[in-house]
Amino acid sequence: MSSVVHVCLVGTGRAGKVHANSLVKHVPGGQLVALVDADPATLAAAGEEYGVKAQFTSLEDALAGADFDAVVIVTPTFTHCQLAVTAANAGKHVLVEKPMAVSLEECDKMIGAAESHGVVLQIAFMRRFDPEMMAGYERIQAGEIGKPMMIKSLSHGPGLPPPWGRDMKKSNGMLAEVNSHDWDCVRWLMDSNYERIYAEIANFKGAARGVDTPEFYDNAIVSIKFESGALGSISGICPCEYGYDGRVEIVGEKGLLQIGDIRGQAVIVGTNRDQGYITPIYRTWGQRFAWGYINEMAHFVSCILKGERPRVTGEDGRWAVAGVLAATKSFREARPVCLSEVM
Amino acid sequence: MSSVVHVCLVGTGRAGKVHANSLVKHVPGGQLVALVDADPATLAAAGEEYGVKAQFTSLEDALAGADFDAVVIVTPTFTHCQLAVTAANAGKHVLVEKPMAVSLEECDKMIGAAESHGVVLQIAFMRRFDPEMMAGYERIQAGEIGKPMMIKSLSHGPGLPPPWGRDMKKSNGMLAEVNSHDWDCVRWLMDSNYERIYAEIANFKGAARGVDTPEFYDNAIVSIKFESGALGSISGICPCEYGYDGRVEIVGEKGLLQIGDIRGQAVIVGTNRDQGYITPIYRTWGQRFAWGYINEMAHFVSCILKGERPRVTGEDGRWAVAGVLAATKSFREARPVCLSEVM
Amino acid sequence: MSSVVHVCLVGTGRAGKVHANSLVKHVPGGQLVALVDADPATLAAAGEEYGVKAQFTSLEDALAGADFDAVVIVTPTFTHCQLAVTAANAGKHVLVEKPMAVSLEECDKMIGAAESHGVVLQIAFMRRFDPEMMAGYERIQAGEIGKPMMIKSLSHGPGLPPPWGRDMKKSNGMLAEVNSHDWDCVRWLMDSNYERIYAEIANFKGAARGVDTPEFYDNAIVSIKFESGALGSISGICPCEYGYDGRVEIVGEKGLLQIGDIRGQAVIVGTNRDQGYITPIYRTWGQRFAWGYINEMAHFVSCILKGERPRVTGEDGRWAVAGVLAATKSFREARPVCLSEVM
Amino acid sequence: MSSVVHVCLVGTGRAGKVHANSLVKHVPGGQLVALVDADPATLAAAGEEYGVKAQFTSLEDALAGADFDAVVIVTPTFTHCQLAVTAANAGKHVLVEKPMAVSLEECDKMIGAAESHGVVLQIAFMRRFDPEMMAGYERIQAGEIGKPMMIKSLSHGPGLPPPWGRDMKKSNGMLAEVNSHDWDCVRWLMDSNYERIYAEIANFKGAARGVDTPEFYDNAIVSIKFESGALGSISGICPCEYGYDGRVEIVGEKGLLQIGDIRGQAVIVGTNRDQGYITPIYRTWGQRFAWGYINEMAHFVSCILKGERPRVTGEDGRWAVAGVLAATKSFREARPVCLSEVM
Repeated sequence: MSSVVHVCLVGTGRAGKVHANSLVKHVPGGQLVALVDADPATLAAAGEEYGVKAQFTSLEDALAGADFDAVVIVTPTFTHCQLAVTAANAGKHVLVEKPMAVSLEECDKMIGAAESHGVVLQIAFMRRFDPEMMAGYERIQAGEIGKPMMIKSLSHGPGLPPPWGRDMKKSNGMLAEVNSHDWDCVRWLMDSNYERIYAEIANFKGAARGVDTPEFYDNAIVSIKFESGALGSISGICPCEYGYDGRVEIVGEKGLLQIGDIRGQAVIVGTNRDQGYITPIYRTWGQRFAWGYINEMAHFVSCILKGERPRVTGEDGRWAVAGVLAATKSFREARPVCLSEVM
Repeated sequence: MSSVVHVCLVGTGRAGKVHANSLVKHVPGGQLVALVDADPATLAAAGEEYGVKAQFTSLEDALAGADFDAVVIVTPTFTHCQLAVTAANAGKHVLVEKPMAVSLEECDKMIGAAESHGVVLQIAFMRRFDPEMMAGYERIQAGEIGKPMMIKSLSHGPGLPPPWGRDMKKSNGMLAEVNSHDWDCVRWLMDSNYERIYAEIANFKGAARGVDTPEFYDNAIVSIKFESGALGSISGICPCEYGYDGRVEIVGEKGLLQIGDIRGQAVIVGTNRDQGYITPIYRTWGQRFAWGYINEMAHFVSCILKGERPRVTGEDGRWAVAGVLAATKSFREARPVCLSEVM
Repeated sequence: MSSVVHVCLVGTGRAGKVHANSLVKHVPGGQLVALVDADPATLAAAGEEYGVKAQFTSLEDALAGADFDAVVIVTPTFTHCQLAVTAANAGKHVLVEKPMAVSLEECDKMIGAAESHGVVLQIAFMRRFDPEMMAGYERIQAGEIGKPMMIKSLSHGPGLPPPWGRDMKKSNGMLAEVNSHDWDCVRWLMDSNYERIYAEIANFKGAARGVDTPEFYDNAIVSIKFESGALGSISGICPCEYGYDGRVEIVGEKGLLQIGDIRGQAVIVGTNRDQGYITPIYRTWGQRFAWGYINEMAHFVSCILKGERPRVTGEDGRWAVAGVLAATKSFREARPVCLSEVM
Repeated sequence: MSSVVHVCLVGTGRAGKVHANSLVKHVPGGQLVALVDADPATLAAAGEEYGVKAQFTSLEDALAGADFDAVVIVTPTFTHCQLAVTAANAGKHVLVEKPMAVSLEECDKMIGAAESHGVVLQIAFMRRFDPEMMAGYERIQAGEIGKPMMIKSLSHGPGLPPPWGRDMKKSNGMLAEVNSHDWDCVRWLMDSNYERIYAEIANFKGAARGVDTPEFYDNAIVSIKFESGALGSISGICPCEYGYDGRVEIVGEKGLLQIGDIRGQAVIVGTNRDQGYITPIYRTWGQRFAWGYINEMAHFVSCILKGERPRVTGEDGRWAVAGVLAATKSFREARPVCLSEVM
């Protein structure tokens, strides 16, 4: 292989363009050489924006018509497995967006295909590459707060997900689409797998927005008992309107660690003493995790070039999916669910 | 009655002295005229500190030997009911520390005695008198964040509770002793009763501290489903070592409201660029809720003088106890428990 | 003397009522027994509010008609000297608001009268009693930041001062009326006197507000060279509209110390992701220095009862006046002015 | 010209490597093709790190031996003029670090050479490209705080400058080396030139560090009167030890704007309730202005490719030098100095 990884981006929507931006501007070892999107207009616009002429409406066409080393899959969840397996079978390295897939069976197929063909399979948990999250992880590992006892992680996002993103069959809903990052983060930071899950959900905004998706919910609180004996909580709200909010708190035997803030910029303006002063908030995940996205792409490219195993593996993606499945079973049956029941 | 309320303080330990301080320094309408404590040394020291000569080792003796209008009960939980009922039966107004009592039956006796004798019965949920909590409540009521969808409240306290405070029969343990405030706050701020509770607990520090209390736990996460359909979470950690931590976050249909901070003073010192800068943290609940304690005592005195019903009633105290009982049943049986099962 | 200090409040306007509130609610050792105000309506209203029947339109009348131990002087600056001297000559202890007086000659008369009659003379620099300022002072004294090299102190206040408060003859203007606290604080915290002063002023809002006071200015930046060799800066803005802002930063040889914040409450609300989230700001000095006002009154009462010298003396008040005089000479002559030129 | 700008980096020390990093990782339109450094070891190390084989010990050699479009000059201040003029005369575009030069005559030569040869001359005031500073500027321009009345800007840096950086002839000392950014920022944000300057300096740490540079100072406070009538203050401390600190506050007729914070990461750890919790601080300017450095390089490359005038010009650099010269004259003569005296 040359010293540059040639990449085909599959899915050129909003999230896809975040990855395109990383490749084009900030990861010199990666070169965006082909684009795939089922929608010709989106595809053409992305091609124009990133100066990529090789444009295809399917991965199969791209494999046939362009030369590349890796794919970045940024499509709806229910398509991940088939795309990843196709790419791996063609010997392409795979970076796939979260959630990894809809079921554990799909995850297993993806992991199996990657292993069979010796390609990198990285799940796009960009929080693991956020400088603040990484610093937090390292400080826990260094023992600063002692043995972790409790973790709370939240992801509140501003806008209503698209129909497939709230369809329990196509995506597993909000706990998968929005909270996948939390599922991964708490397991990573606590260095322990989930043992038992309890979930409560609520639907506050669906009716007013004309959502008729069965089992739709826009609020969730999940309780987690870890194998280590520690406790955890994940909360999800989407749409929350007020901004993009992703924060983690961990208490260990020695003390407290907080990671993240809603403050989007260290700028304040005060002009009304009856109201107070105003601080910008993170509007989107792209703003909040700007360096996380860049760093994860640089890591993916580096793993390919160096032949190394990525820091976020298919196994990690599979665990996050398992958590979602247990939580879903929990709120459907109104009881705590052990991971052993779904894995 | 004169324009001053004469008060007998029952229990002159650390928490009792917080109330004595309010009476002596900051609530001119209240006059501390008698002290009760079973321990003569503690009693004498408090008498000396506050200049109160009427000192008794039992409430009965105080009732016989001193003239006062009200009692402030700051003793172990399992003694609250008997003391409050005795006081009410003697026509004395009652401010009783949280948790109100060990069982709902005890709560009912206390409420009944107060009603029968037409005395004020106020539960010492000082957070309701904290200027920040009050501002948060008013802003929710004013509709600033829309209909509340989710609340999270935490109380993490620094030190190991005394033996009775972790004895499930004498106090109901940490969820009662430490988290009573959260139980009350979430109900107050959400303006809805709990419907269903799920609790997970853990014991991380008991063994190292030689705690052999049965069912001891020092970490808890509680999930709440409110009658309104909203979701909630309470977390408790004690001992947490790192300070006193009491914060609340509420998300409504329109946005986010955060109340409280761990920052104990707006003072920072930075002398080590490899480490960072240091900000004081609240060391104790007395520091965090300094105005809350003063304001609740002023409210108690005012209610007595004006013949008004207190803002925090026996019913409120009873609900907090009910929540603890449901949570305890939940972690014992590893299942969600509806309030209807315990009330 | 009895164990209670009987106090006559001279000046029952907004600032006077802050002191009345301290006496009536939070300083049990002090008793507000008489009120003086030249305006009968203001006087009657304060009498009603604080339940004080002994009301007079002059200090002389109060001295003749009421029995008290001390006066608290909260009147326009140009009246301080005559009132304080009258009170001291009558053997009354004196707490006088800042600025101490208009000239050093007046300060000397006040100091002399207090010394002659052996009464306490305390200047109302309440920042010295603010818990955060006190903590900062103690940490500097403890050597946490090493030898102080630079200090910056600011006071920005919301509203236009009254006519006498911007009249250079009756008050010395904004640097005296608003920034007296900074003059005192920097000298206290740096533990060094000013040696040389340079001041720049500006008038941005006078014209639009119809201010025709000669030499009116609403913005000022003062540079200070201390006798210790350290540097300092004071800034004043009044009216600033956005709230009450009083903060200090000190850098010592070892590091940074910041005291104070504009945040008026640890409460935030976020409902608009394009704008950000909103934090309450201190609206007034009364809010910002609530404990400072209470503590300074408690200190005054305690000094009287114990016969001790107050922590803030006439000498301190005199130095603040000297700083203002040097700064005024500086901006009038557009050159740095040494304190030796005015003292 | 091709669609890529070929760049020669002159000066491969710590600051030079920040720019190399931008070019190699984050500015795809720029290609680092040649390196110049007088020190062969430094040069070779940088060549190895960035994979640049064309290495020279002088700009003249580089001009003769390599093909490039632009130079980035990151050498001691006293060398800027000669290097920039040489480059411009050879038709190369120039990005030169601050301070622009030692004297206004040097600035004029640089501006003249760039104009004569039609090349871009950009001064590396990276704060103008910091997202927070840019947002602040835009909000002022949008009128959010009304007409600016007062600005305060500070730069406190951790380490002792090298000998040339404190030599008044080779660099003009700290107000130039450390505070150039403040000189530029206040002029930019206030949209007004300086009219009158007063400076106070102090030397606290020189002796203990064995500094024998004449006129050495490590603390400075500068007062500024702007042509607009507004007031300003700049403070410099170097070495300050506690981190890298660069913040700005502006008060306009309508309110307050603060830009920047010492918080280096939204991560806190609390393990000691007697001490408080710890927040990372910015250790270096590279951390604080990470995006500023990337964005300024992207802007330089874009201006070259599009033939546009840079947002930070030689005139801007010249004004910052003029401010330093006026401030230096001020502290030498202990009097305020008008810009007209030095320009």
